[in-house]
Amino acid sequence: MATIVFCSVNKTARTTARRCLSSYSKGLASSGESPLSCTHSPLTTLLPGTRWFSRGSSVRFMSHGTAGRAGRTRRGALLSGAAAVTAAAAVAGFLANANHFQRAEMATKVSPISEEKEPEGEILERCRGFMSPPVTDIGELQERKGEMRTRMEMLIMQTQADFCKALEVVDGGTFKVDRWQRNEGGGGISCVMQDGKVFEKAGVNVSVVFGYLTEEAAKQMRSRGKVLKGKDGKLPFCAMGVSSVIHPKNPHIPTVHFNYRYFEIEEEDGSKQWWFGGGTDLTPVYINKEDAFHFHNTLKEACDKHHSQYYPDFKKWCDRYFYIRHRGETRGIGGIFFDDLDSPSQEEAFSFVKSCARTVVPCYLPIVYKHLNDSFTEEEKDWQQVRRGRYVEFNLVYDRGVKFGLATPGSRIESILMSLPLSARWEYMHEPAEGTLEAEMLEALRNPKEWL
Amino acid sequence: MATIVFCSVNKTARTTARRCLSSYSKGLASSGESPLSCTHSPLTTLLPGTRWFSRGSSVRFMSHGTAGRAGRTRRGALLSGAAAVTAAAAVAGFLANANHFQRAEMATKVSPISEEKEPEGEILERCRGFMSPPVTDIGELQERKGEMRTRMEMLIMQTQADFCKALEVVDGGTFKVDRWQRNEGGGGISCVMQDGKVFEKAGVNVSVVFGYLTEEAAKQMRSRGKVLKGKDGKLPFCAMGVSSVIHPKNPHIPTVHFNYRYFEIEEEDGSKQWWFGGGTDLTPVYINKEDAFHFHNTLKEACDKHHSQYYPDFKKWCDRYFYIRHRGETRGIGGIFFDDLDSPSQEEAFSFVKSCARTVVPCYLPIVYKHLNDSFTEEEKDWQQVRRGRYVEFNLVYDRGVKFGLATPGSRIESILMSLPLSARWEYMHEPAEGTLEAEMLEALRNPKEWL
Repeated sequence: MATIVFCSVNKTARTTARRCLSSYSKGLASSGESPLSCTHSPLTTLLPGTRWFSRGSSVRFMSHGTAGRAGRTRRGALLSGAAAVTAAAAVAGFLANANHFQRAEMATKVSPISEEKEPEGEILERCRGFMSPPVTDIGELQERKGEMRTRMEMLIMQTQADFCKALEVVDGGTFKVDRWQRNEGGGGISCVMQDGKVFEKAGVNVSVVFGYLTEEAAKQMRSRGKVLKGKDGKLPFCAMGVSSVIHPKNPHIPTVHFNYRYFEIEEEDGSKQWWFGGGTDLTPVYINKEDAFHFHNTLKEACDKHHSQYYPDFKKWCDRYFYIRHRGETRGIGGIFFDDLDSPSQEEAFSFVKSCARTVVPCYLPIVYKHLNDSFTEEEKDWQQVRRGRYVEFNLVYDRGVKFGLATPGSRIESILMSLPLSARWEYMHEPAEGTLEAEMLEALRNPKEWL
Repeated sequence: MATIVFCSVNKTARTTARRCLSSYSKGLASSGESPLSCTHSPLTTLLPGTRWFSRGSSVRFMSHGTAGRAGRTRRGALLSGAAAVTAAAAVAGFLANANHFQRAEMATKVSPISEEKEPEGEILERCRGFMSPPVTDIGELQERKGEMRTRMEMLIMQTQADFCKALEVVDGGTFKVDRWQRNEGGGGISCVMQDGKVFEKAGVNVSVVFGYLTEEAAKQMRSRGKVLKGKDGKLPFCAMGVSSVIHPKNPHIPTVHFNYRYFEIEEEDGSKQWWFGGGTDLTPVYINKEDAFHFHNTLKEACDKHHSQYYPDFKKWCDRYFYIRHRGETRGIGGIFFDDLDSPSQEEAFSFVKSCARTVVPCYLPIVYKHLNDSFTEEEKDWQQVRRGRYVEFNLVYDRGVKFGLATPGSRIESILMSLPLSARWEYMHEPAEGTLEAEMLEALRNPKEWL
């Protein structure tokens, strides 16, 4: 039943899906299974997003897939229609996060992972469902399919596709797909839907970049406590991630943000340092306790499969990170946020990140469907716009990824700033009257709550 | 003729004023006289803004004026209706500017000042025309009327009043006046008009703060090359300024910003370091060469009275300062910007700042009147909103005053962020088509021009 929500493409099915949302949520809350596990394949065949694929035959695609750099470049131009922009959007987020000061205290004991390992399937077959060919050449991915960077790239591409397609179904619109390259190595795929029926602005970005760490970046790494020795002072690195911000039109549908990322750095002796980071958080315009419960509970379930401390620790970390200091408010009602995760093993950490990435759709889409037809007043729209202004303040003033990105020459600015809303508002001395729903929202932002 | 523009309060006079704008501008460009020199007194009696004064008798006001702290506090509460907010908005701008890296190269030769010195008049009489009682007690101002801090406070209060009243005449709306106090010493007066007929958001802020420099701030001062020795490490300072940002509704009326400020710091031996800073700059949505010429020429004339290098040097400085690095664009078409001005004498520097402050109205208001009834399309309004987004980016990411203010605990955030537009827009990959007026605007921002 639940999977209908994400697999269906016609209106009747959508209505059915909405009707069964409450049972879906209940099912979700108790099953302990990710509803997405069954939707990866159906989605890729049923839903749009194969546009990049239909332009060439699968034979041609396969031959390009193993044809190396030239083929990749040609295909990129052919498929996305986007300029091959030099960019370092992803490095931005990664390196900036290297500079953080917080580290969740984790117990070393890890509960057994009950989730059955999903077969990761044939690379080429899975790529057919993506929004664009992956950043890395498919031939390369096939050659080193067992390596973590390949598995992570496949996960972030899959997450992008699943999320974009789920949003396209609910909106009826289509994502614009820009595939860009970075001169220094790697590139990204930016999917943006703007001024849709449901979404004011929806951006889902993947980036996979590699190269050498600059002296400044390496210094940042070292200040974090990691001892990193490079060959002749050079540190080869690879950074990848998926990140997204969705701003809906209706003020009763909250904004969501998520970001999952992986960093690898090679030391002088050939050994690799690696870690994961990420999180998902919700920014409503009005408090809806049911939505907040559903959102946090879905995250908690994903966390609990891996470690009982993950949810409480990462929930707190999220509240701390998304804090607009000059306003004395959090950006939203939180979720989870973590960084620097390099334990208990690479396999376990990846498994946790995979669980998180797979909760993005079930965390958010039920809330979207629930409020799809909520009516709203001009005043409620105004309050949404004021809150959007605060979102801009956080992103431009505090967000480490954005700050680092803007300061990095050659960054792809449009991908970094696609998180900004289509429109925002700043009213002088705006303070909601006591007892209003707006005041209730502010109170929750000024005093972060436990939603479970 | 010209003065009618600023002195008149009725509609007929406004129409007449608009009709004679071209001759006004020409007259302005050739007369070498500030049209405001005759308008200070008429404005204060003819225009609104005496609201704070009419609530008490002049006798009562005078007695409060010399009654010290208690009277001032009571009057502040009575007059502005604003909470006495702890704040350091002004310090922000001042201290931040202390951290700049640029310094205009100035020849030491100063041309004689042709402008006749205007009598500064009786303190109390002049205060009647302000938007609110000054920050400093009027009795104190009268006692030390010859000191620079008094003369500067009177100038910034006068500038605020003249500008607010000129804007009220053209808009028909009224400024909301908030008088706030800073726990550590001093306070400010924030005047904001929001969602008026002509202006989307207009903010004119005065602040006068004093106290002791923190170790961090003192370090910033020292890194600028000033040798500052405090008594027991403490450096008494006084900082004051007027700053304003005006965002009109009509996309054919540009946004204007100005800021004039004075800093005084006392060293161990009782000697004082002092300097002035400031500037006025224009941010149009579309290029209008006539407007650009009028704006820059008015500034150049004010500068030329004091030093022939001021305009060329401060014009360049302005283009450098208001640069949105990650976009490769200036914020607008510039104007003048200077800081750290402590030569050739305090008297001469003040005289220059006074000339600048007095050009604010004649720089901007003729442009407002000229485009008051320009029609515009939805597309032009959209482009304005996109440019407003860039304005937000500059102010939140680069503006030193804003950055420092947001980072300073206890700052009055609403006064710092009143420079943000009422609304702004971020469109993904927005790039005007070649040959359009929007592309022409962008070109001027990417390659700063000489407008004279």
